[in-house]
Amino acid sequence: MIMFSIKPIAHAYNERKEMTDDNWGKVETKIVLVQDISEDSLAGIESFSHLEVIFYFHRVKKEKIVTEARHPRNNKNLPIVGIFAQRGKNRPNQLGLSTVRLLRREGRDLYVLGLDCIDETPIIDIKPVMKEFLPQGSIVQPTWTNDVMKNYWNK
Amino acid sequence: MIMFSIKPIAHAYNERKEMTDDNWGKVETKIVLVQDISEDSLAGIESFSHLEVIFYFHRVKKEKIVTEARHPRNNKNLPIVGIFAQRGKNRPNQLGLSTVRLLRREGRDLYVLGLDCIDETPIIDIKPVMKEFLPQGSIVQPTWTNDVMKNYWNK
Repeated sequence: MIMFSIKPIAHAYNERKEMTDDNWGKVETKIVLVQDISEDSLAGIESFSHLEVIFYFHRVKKEKIVTEARHPRNNKNLPIVGIFAQRGKNRPNQLGLSTVRLLRREGRDLYVLGLDCIDETPIIDIKPVMKEFLPQGSIVQPTWTNDVMKNYWNK
Repeated sequence: MIMFSIKPIAHAYNERKEMTDDNWGKVETKIVLVQDISEDSLAGIESFSHLEVIFYFHRVKKEKIVTEARHPRNNKNLPIVGIFAQRGKNRPNQLGLSTVRLLRREGRDLYVLGLDCIDETPIIDIKPVMKEFLPQGSIVQPTWTNDVMKNYWNK
């Protein structure tokens, strides 16, 4: 069995202490580099407006991880779909991914908006958003996603 | 030192055998689930037009990994920027990330366009693109990215 090791390059700090589904719109998060990553790793990052942040759902219990299909949010009113057709946290490899707005950088710290992870979440990678990597063509998604996203970014 | 283990949920197969920087526009990739992941994990994924794919740069040599700053593509005509202000492969944790167009699904296989990884690359996660997770507001990026991206998606 092939396995790879990853380790935090930073941690996220914000007001959200417990995982809840909605109302992420006004949650501001401070991302702080771990000690063995150089401050230079952020050089020039402030010339980008948006970042992609890969993080680790560290509070997920291994026995909850789904490798097949389930109702999104375990809501029986929604159709059963595969774990890779939804963005829920109980997924193989426990990686989360958000596109965030970079508010400002202060030395080793980044302040961002739109990072839907809880306080003390390990950050695995940060990549700058370039418009050339955005989805090409129009985006199609099923109607059940409207239910899930209805209150997600509420402020 | 905190570390996490991740393992491939699938592998990518395409015509690109060696890592080269440009001309990814017409590279079609087949993603095949590993044996211990259920086909049900893809149920309903074909109702999305685009996916985000997290993969592992398996051919990167550990000693090449940059934890501070460098010229993108090691091109001295470009400014020195932090590794987290660029998308190059020689980065901590060796994770790549692409937004791809889903062409079709055939059972345990996905056919996608826009996945800029080489043949046999381990896939770590697949997430559906929902428009609610796209960058909010206008995207700003520095001019050096124009040089880097000029021929990237050439066909």
